[in-house]
Amino acid sequence: MILTVTLNTALDITYRVRELRPHASHRVDEMTERPGGKGLNVARVLAALGHEVTVTGFVGGVTGRALRDRLARTPEVVDALVPVSGSTRRTIAVADTTTGDTTQLNEPGPEITPAEWADFQEAYEVLLRSCSAVALCGSLPPGVPVGAYAQLVRTARALAVPVLLDTSGEPLRRGIAARPDVVKPNADELAELTGSHDPSQATRDARRRGAHAVVASLGADGLLARTPEGDWRAAPPRPVRGNPTGAGDSAVAGLLSGLVEKLPWPDRLARAVALSAATVLAPVAGEFDRPAYEELLSRVSVTSQTTAA
Amino acid sequence: MILTVTLNTALDITYRVRELRPHASHRVDEMTERPGGKGLNVARVLAALGHEVTVTGFVGGVTGRALRDRLARTPEVVDALVPVSGSTRRTIAVADTTTGDTTQLNEPGPEITPAEWADFQEAYEVLLRSCSAVALCGSLPPGVPVGAYAQLVRTARALAVPVLLDTSGEPLRRGIAARPDVVKPNADELAELTGSHDPSQATRDARRRGAHAVVASLGADGLLARTPEGDWRAAPPRPVRGNPTGAGDSAVAGLLSGLVEKLPWPDRLARAVALSAATVLAPVAGEFDRPAYEELLSRVSVTSQTTAA
Repeated sequence: MILTVTLNTALDITYRVRELRPHASHRVDEMTERPGGKGLNVARVLAALGHEVTVTGFVGGVTGRALRDRLARTPEVVDALVPVSGSTRRTIAVADTTTGDTTQLNEPGPEITPAEWADFQEAYEVLLRSCSAVALCGSLPPGVPVGAYAQLVRTARALAVPVLLDTSGEPLRRGIAARPDVVKPNADELAELTGSHDPSQATRDARRRGAHAVVASLGADGLLARTPEGDWRAAPPRPVRGNPTGAGDSAVAGLLSGLVEKLPWPDRLARAVALSAATVLAPVAGEFDRPAYEELLSRVSVTSQTTAA
Repeated sequence: MILTVTLNTALDITYRVRELRPHASHRVDEMTERPGGKGLNVARVLAALGHEVTVTGFVGGVTGRALRDRLARTPEVVDALVPVSGSTRRTIAVADTTTGDTTQLNEPGPEITPAEWADFQEAYEVLLRSCSAVALCGSLPPGVPVGAYAQLVRTARALAVPVLLDTSGEPLRRGIAARPDVVKPNADELAELTGSHDPSQATRDARRRGAHAVVASLGADGLLARTPEGDWRAAPPRPVRGNPTGAGDSAVAGLLSGLVEKLPWPDRLARAVALSAATVLAPVAGEFDRPAYEELLSRVSVTSQTTAA
């Protein structure tokens, strides 16, 4: 199975309101709730692609119970979340049905104790022993050391499990130095890591920092990959319009499924781009439009990049 | 004991954010949660005044469990909430620490089935038999008939239990016709009910519609009361600045406690105004500043109003 790690899981709540005006009172016209946090989104897409997938990370409190209740409705995703004393965070997306804008409110997440972090590392090591690949996804909750991902990358590498890291800021900077197989920063995360706004330069720099392969997601421009087997740019056949929420997580699912299926890099990238575009096109945030995915898959352009250096 | 009814209970969540900007993503810096809905706020103030108080209404789902868990931490308030299959709503108050503004998002509440409404009416009648007064507070959740408060007023009156109604719109219009002992509209609710923006005229009209006593809360101007024993205006000794959340609920608690203690109307009004002002002054929304309450109590001005008609 594939393992995804979401240390800062969330109950993602979406409110639809007529028009969001600061200082006013609003009636929520429609509400949806779903288990969230990047690794959980990745897991749902992997399951939809037919992979066996297990999720781990921290879960706690009343919100954590709500998250697990909802996760149980997707039996293809195995719940190996580790209970903690704090409460899982909520994220609130306020979708303004007048302007189409979304305003996001993110709770910080529960305080994790050193004992809980130690418990997690034990559970993680046990899970790694039966998995074919692992994705480490998203932000760290309070209390988890900033070098957490570096530690988790090292454990995976010691057990020869391929590891993909998708995070940002200092946890990415520390994690990349532990030599993960793949990192998947977006343009902002890449610029923050390397100081360069030129994706070509920045992806090269990110590889030098320790990642075996760097796949940068460049929004509508698709992906730029620098790997031991070569460098590629992969782009959808046409620009897609819609809700980009979860598009990056779908790209991670594409890369990871391609990795365990031992696909050549260009095929992994085509899958990641097609899944990502099909996620933007789906009416529900974070889900993908399967017919669109199948149609796009053969039409993604993957072009080899001449290495300048 | 005093009974308060909150058909549409809520888990009140407050988020503090640096600056709320539509279409942006925000980190919540601080979060608080408390059991909410007007009747629960009234009950907490009554308990703080030393009254035995029981709360009823509907509660359900994961949010309902969170509400009950928190309510259990105030053992002076007895929980007689009636479980339903739907989920208790959340309200989110986004407090902007830059501007001091608060933006409110209110979920609509659970759909109540006819069987659940019937169960509630039975439970309510049993509770009424051991109570000295009842307050009916706030909005109706979906599925509860718009004439619900009229029905609950009639049941209380049939059992000779004094009943205070604090709601708005059509539920108020229907409820007032069932002849509650007291209604406590604010200026907007009163204008909506009567079509008049002149509180003097509007309170007189509201009495004619069936309420034995009308106590209008006029914000910083205090209260205007029309009762069978006379008409009064009650105002704080000085304008108070702060968070008005819960000030109306504190006024209801003041009126209700004064009623069961058989205080003369001017004393009830003084208590309601002092509690209301002390709630505005309290740092935490919906709580009251006890030293301020005690200091204000003797200094509220209550003046008899000459009846023009």
